[in-house]
Amino acid sequence: MQDSQEYRDKKNYFEKIITLYGRNVVVEALQDSSIEVHKLHLSTSNKTDGAIKEILALAKKRDIEVTYHEKNTLSRISKNAKQDQGVAIDIISKSYRSASEIKEMPSFRLIALDGIHNPQNLGMIIRSCAASTLDGIILPKKNSAKISPLVIKASAGTLFKLPIYYCDNLEDVLQNQSDADIYALSSHAKRSIYDITPSKKSIFVLGNESEGVSPEVIKLCNKAISIPMQRGVESLNVAITASLIAFMS
Amino acid sequence: MQDSQEYRDKKNYFEKIITLYGRNVVVEALQDSSIEVHKLHLSTSNKTDGAIKEILALAKKRDIEVTYHEKNTLSRISKNAKQDQGVAIDIISKSYRSASEIKEMPSFRLIALDGIHNPQNLGMIIRSCAASTLDGIILPKKNSAKISPLVIKASAGTLFKLPIYYCDNLEDVLQNQSDADIYALSSHAKRSIYDITPSKKSIFVLGNESEGVSPEVIKLCNKAISIPMQRGVESLNVAITASLIAFMS
Repeated sequence: MQDSQEYRDKKNYFEKIITLYGRNVVVEALQDSSIEVHKLHLSTSNKTDGAIKEILALAKKRDIEVTYHEKNTLSRISKNAKQDQGVAIDIISKSYRSASEIKEMPSFRLIALDGIHNPQNLGMIIRSCAASTLDGIILPKKNSAKISPLVIKASAGTLFKLPIYYCDNLEDVLQNQSDADIYALSSHAKRSIYDITPSKKSIFVLGNESEGVSPEVIKLCNKAISIPMQRGVESLNVAITASLIAFMS
Repeated sequence: MQDSQEYRDKKNYFEKIITLYGRNVVVEALQDSSIEVHKLHLSTSNKTDGAIKEILALAKKRDIEVTYHEKNTLSRISKNAKQDQGVAIDIISKSYRSASEIKEMPSFRLIALDGIHNPQNLGMIIRSCAASTLDGIILPKKNSAKISPLVIKASAGTLFKLPIYYCDNLEDVLQNQSDADIYALSSHAKRSIYDITPSKKSIFVLGNESEGVSPEVIKLCNKAISIPMQRGVESLNVAITASLIAFMS
């Protein structure tokens, strides 16, 4: 049993790791002492120029583990060979939480994302939700943009302010929320978001911009709502939709 | 006097012209019969390949005037030598109106843009405002992104649905609105947008993302309001701010 707890703690720790890449991004992460760093990765192909020297000096100052890899291995770690510039960094997101925690929460108002692939939209959603009274977002690993420097840039530094509940897929999380109001946002729904009184436990599910909420997820929603639109406009940008929900009073 | 009226009508007509460029954009504009076209511009340096043939055939079908220019002249027309691909098109935006009309309107709820340079933000603002009950946006020529294919793409085809009140600069328009509530959006303002009761004539002024509303324009606003933000978040994306205002009930 003790092993099992240890295993879960370890798994939990690794689930919170976000791997970022690119020299500027790595320097910024190392300079920000509020960002907890797990490990720094460098390619053996890097020349020891000004940027690499700065990175190494910052890592030494913070006593951060540095590992060296062949160029190909580094690209597998960064998952972005084109933009990693031979450097990657594992950081620990304190705002990452397992979506399994939601079941224990007595009340919540959350946005769940189903198929948001555009990093700029994801970043904007995080920024608006962080600024709102919403309790967090549910971000499945399946079918979502990865947290990347692009997302972080679009989030304008708010990524670590907002609880992000991670999960493998949204279906598993929603299945466990039988006492919650689970709203699917759909432009076809007759009920307006301005006509609802959210209960103590509310989850608003936002789908992909072109496809909407996926059929598997729709089945697990118990309500459908829409944002009323004028002038024959058929849809809003998904980050705008998320913001209107997040700031609903 | 008649000359003067004629002159104003002509000026008015030319004020409504938006020049777009790029082969795909021009084909799309020509194919959309709801878009009124003033003139098609082609560079004499174009080879008569498939795309140009298609453009010429569409123009002929709609009986649209085609003019040929030296490559440099064409670039001066498109104002985007890098992306015009030797083609530009003048279209008439029916939703463009002179901001001088606002003075005659008995009531309105408008958003005025002061220094929005990012085409994607401008497009998103147009899209959200078009979908809302807002009466339009005031878009000064000075200090704004030009309406370009990038803006049109981000507006998701809603550009011509929303009244856009053009003017040379915002100061002239706001100076003429002494009986309106003119709200400057500012993160420093103590009053929340959710605590106001907009009067019959309301203008909400949104500034540039990094600089906020400019000092010259601030002076002409008679109220300052902010969107209340949690978790120490300092600002929202300007398109999000515009959307929250546009959808305020």
